Amino acid sequence: MTLNLYSLNMDKGLHYEAIVTTQNEDGTPNAAPMGVICKGPDQVVLRLHEGSHTIANVKREKKFYVNLSRDPLLFTYSLISNPPSTEFKKEKHGFSLKNADASFFGQVHHEKKVEKKDAMGENVTLMFHSQVQDIKQYKTESEPLNRAICGIIEALVNLSRVKRAPVEKKKEYTDRMKEISRVVNRVGGVEHKEAIELIKKEFEIRVKG
Amino acid sequence: MTLNLYSLNMDKGLHYEAIVTTQNEDGTPNAAPMGVICKGPDQVVLRLHEGSHTIANVKREKKFYVNLSRDPLLFTYSLISNPPSTEFKKEKHGFSLKNADASFFGQVHHEKKVEKKDAMGENVTLMFHSQVQDIKQYKTESEPLNRAICGIIEALVNLSRVKRAPVEKKKEYTDRMKEISRVVNRVGGVEHKEAIELIKKEFEIRVKG
Repeated sequence: MTLNLYSLNMDKGLHYEAIVTTQNEDGTPNAAPMGVICKGPDQVVLRLHEGSHTIANVKREKKFYVNLSRDPLLFTYSLISNPPSTEFKKEKHGFSLKNADASFFGQVHHEKKVEKKDAMGENVTLMFHSQVQDIKQYKTESEPLNRAICGIIEALVNLSRVKRAPVEKKKEYTDRMKEISRVVNRVGGVEHKEAIELIKKEFEIRVKG
Repeated sequence: MTLNLYSLNMDKGLHYEAIVTTQNEDGTPNAAPMGVICKGPDQVVLRLHEGSHTIANVKREKKFYVNLSRDPLLFTYSLISNPPSTEFKKEKHGFSLKNADASFFGQVHHEKKVEKKDAMGENVTLMFHSQVQDIKQYKTESEPLNRAICGIIEALVNLSRVKRAPVEKKKEYTDRMKEISRVVNRVGGVEHKEAIELIKKEFEIRVKG
């Protein structure tokens, strides 16, 4: 059976948290946590912020590996520094991570720059539209990491608490709800978006009560 | 093969988000999102806040069903009102949810009251130590919902942003990091706790930089 992204429990349109591995100019491996959007059974968009180490590698090589994992330490080491070199596995076009739940190769075919102003100032994101190949699934019962359900659960916790929150806390809850809603709408599917709308409506009622 | 909680990908000591179904005094079904702690292959603790509908039912009947799901609308309806009655399935000792990824029956054998003061005032939690029976797994590739990895990902996002955050935003990031750390330490496993400690240390360095 040929694997595709749907075999990895990915859904079209959803945004997943993954660890992207690339090759540095000197041939050494690099790993960093990144957002990956599933665009079809063999298509992804890699979302990278200007200035990262990974972006220089992807721009130069047009190649990367995506590693799916739920390992908190693998994510943490990938952001803070790099996982130990023993964690990397040599692949045909670079490196993947040995202990990933699944991995695949991405070949960039199209690049798009998105400039946006947010609370942090100017924000430049590069979207690398890529063809997926060489999908490997090491752990079948694993789900790719999507933050939408995290947001829904947190929003429900907020909702259940807001009524008995002291007045000075209500603004904090309201701000938090806005931020959660923003994330869920960015990374979630249709049902997550429907759920967050229902929660926001109920929140409006309870925050006044 | 006899299923146990570990077959559902639950780990000892971890805290999961689930939907608990109980029977009301008039025989109708009730569903609510609740925290369930896995204490062993056939042992859970149900954590309930004083005042909920579910708590009255569990106190009276000493029985409940736990439904594992990642369905955002099922969680949302269970908190706001109740899922439609067609979503419930009649079971020997009450009700479960038809579209759960897995479900099991819990029989309370021991009850403990925990009183705590927090930002919200007095907080009474009841811990129902329970024997698990009748485990059913409908979707094998699903993972039970644990908020620890959500917290780790959010903490990493915070960490990657704090350096370029304006001064007036840094306090917000620091407060948020405290709250995430509290949740991860409550619901996570050893590796989640280790990861959050590493992130906090690195955060301390970057927030000053």
